[in-house]
Amino acid sequence: MQAYFDNSATTKPAPEAVDAAYKALSECWGNPSSLHRAGNQAAAVIEDSREAVAKVLGCESKEIFFTSGGTEANNLALTGAAEKMKRCGKRIVSTVAEHPSVYDTLTYLETKGFEIVRLGIDSEGKINPDELFEAITPDTILVSVMSVNNEVGSIMPVEKIKKAVARAKSNALIHCDAVQAFGKIPLRPGALGIDLMSISSHKIHGPKGAGALYVSKKVKISPLFHGGEQEMKVRPGTEAVPAIAGFGAAAKLLTDINAETEKVRVIRDRIVSSFKEAGGVVFNSPGDALPYILNISVPGIKSEPLMNYLSANGICVSSGSACSKGKRSRVLTEMNLPFERLESPVRISLSRFNTAEEADYLTDMIKKAQSEIRKTV
Amino acid sequence: MQAYFDNSATTKPAPEAVDAAYKALSECWGNPSSLHRAGNQAAAVIEDSREAVAKVLGCESKEIFFTSGGTEANNLALTGAAEKMKRCGKRIVSTVAEHPSVYDTLTYLETKGFEIVRLGIDSEGKINPDELFEAITPDTILVSVMSVNNEVGSIMPVEKIKKAVARAKSNALIHCDAVQAFGKIPLRPGALGIDLMSISSHKIHGPKGAGALYVSKKVKISPLFHGGEQEMKVRPGTEAVPAIAGFGAAAKLLTDINAETEKVRVIRDRIVSSFKEAGGVVFNSPGDALPYILNISVPGIKSEPLMNYLSANGICVSSGSACSKGKRSRVLTEMNLPFERLESPVRISLSRFNTAEEADYLTDMIKKAQSEIRKTV
Repeated sequence: MQAYFDNSATTKPAPEAVDAAYKALSECWGNPSSLHRAGNQAAAVIEDSREAVAKVLGCESKEIFFTSGGTEANNLALTGAAEKMKRCGKRIVSTVAEHPSVYDTLTYLETKGFEIVRLGIDSEGKINPDELFEAITPDTILVSVMSVNNEVGSIMPVEKIKKAVARAKSNALIHCDAVQAFGKIPLRPGALGIDLMSISSHKIHGPKGAGALYVSKKVKISPLFHGGEQEMKVRPGTEAVPAIAGFGAAAKLLTDINAETEKVRVIRDRIVSSFKEAGGVVFNSPGDALPYILNISVPGIKSEPLMNYLSANGICVSSGSACSKGKRSRVLTEMNLPFERLESPVRISLSRFNTAEEADYLTDMIKKAQSEIRKTV
Repeated sequence: MQAYFDNSATTKPAPEAVDAAYKALSECWGNPSSLHRAGNQAAAVIEDSREAVAKVLGCESKEIFFTSGGTEANNLALTGAAEKMKRCGKRIVSTVAEHPSVYDTLTYLETKGFEIVRLGIDSEGKINPDELFEAITPDTILVSVMSVNNEVGSIMPVEKIKKAVARAKSNALIHCDAVQAFGKIPLRPGALGIDLMSISSHKIHGPKGAGALYVSKKVKISPLFHGGEQEMKVRPGTEAVPAIAGFGAAAKLLTDINAETEKVRVIRDRIVSSFKEAGGVVFNSPGDALPYILNISVPGIKSEPLMNYLSANGICVSSGSACSKGKRSRVLTEMNLPFERLESPVRISLSRFNTAEEADYLTDMIKKAQSEIRKTV
């Protein structure tokens, strides 16, 4: 049996997304910037995807700018906002729990003279809203907080940022890395007062090679690339039409986010109950985490042998972010977990396509691993 | 009849490239950074493509870094080299004929304190090698010259840059935008002494959404994105596996570049002869241009009505770079062409799949357009 529980790393493209990408490759292959029919066809594909993505975020399609993925969207948002706002101040407020593409970009901006304030997290992986209010000063130019943490699934209080910025009488732009949240939590950046929001295609059963940055129409940022008029000059370069076509098709499938999340919650709860019954497993994800992510530790068994055991049995999980393989988790360390748990995290990440049978197979194999690996150590 | 002569804007993906992308979408869809089998399969797809691309350039596969396309590769090369070399000097030598993704990135670097020297071009669209030798000083940190001009097909003397840099006793890195040359001229960056070379998938019958930067193993540049360990940290972010798979498949088809170019030359010469016979057409491309690009003007008929006429008859051509639609050509202006020709450029760009029948249809329709459009003006 095969069971894929690494959906926070990437998801299997939905058949609709594969078909849309295939059609763009084999039929609508013109350059969207070309003024002839082949170009117009490709441009129409992109605009159709832009509308589909905008619909999920409840925004205007002109507020969606396609990128090569979430990492580029995060880099564009932070570097583009910092460059645009640098005359107003140097202070940027973020958290210690961000994905490397936010965390490391801020470290880079620090070398360029920006002051980076990173809020700590508690044992549930969440920031304290009071600290957020304290950290945002009148000269803060940018606040970047993720919606859902990619390792433990904690949901951050991004809805409080707008108020904190207003109370500080700051002009700060608000960025939210919503790569793990998009399609799983109904997010309306407009209603939340978020100016910039990063999303990715391949986390929602679309192809790799496409992502987008929502940029509120009230806001302007500097580009990361130069040359070309594409994407209103915010993101020059010939568009990745096949991946964008697939992204749009995947976005169109997100018709009832809450219902899908409830479905996933049932599977997640089944896994949790099974572990609780058997014992020997500790939960690193908080109880109110997004049900798509369940981070556990099996004290006494390190992540790698457990992952290898599961992989040999057709089960895919991960020890943390695919973007920082091999390193000890910064997020779990910041959560101040005991050493034993830091050595043994396993992230089980679900999609709406996972079944109860797969969940049972996963928990059975982890229980089996517990006895077999312990025997050999 | 349909005839696509806008291959410098983009090419139709080869069936092999479409199949490879489709397979990556539907079968090898894991995250290449994941340590389980699904991840390993995707990583293998990327490494296979890397080897295929490296083989065409006669370099080691570890010298190939995948990007989202040529624009990103050019931005990464220039910004990454300037950032890395800034302690040695501020002078960057380039040309007035570069693609916007080079030209505009250098304009951006100028705002960051770099000194940009742009060599002029003659009426054939070429730089003067003597001026290249004069322009490169000991404190020059970067030289960026395209291999083949994207609008007129002029071939630049990139093989002379290494000597000019050595004679000036400069440590300058050498970058070459080879987006239009890759797969059409046998290019060996190692033998040419080129440190950085940009190439793109969708110009060689691969999918949009992938390109690469060759970075000599002797050289280090700073990344454009931050976060993630992908592509040796030179280009973080989850790889666009389907596009990269198609790029590799398209590269594998480049088995006899010289023979393909001769085939294209025959078609190009057929078009030239037909125009010469009929009269009324001026050639903006020099006689020794890469045969894949033939830039003409039909004095008295502006580009747009002619392109529209051809488009209505199933023929795709362009008035210049797809990345700078609507603007008067900088390249033709710098070639000092008479005003009448600046108003009426048409770029006919070929691929190895164009036929003699398509060429005849094109020339017939342009002749027909000459009489019909003139009548209505």
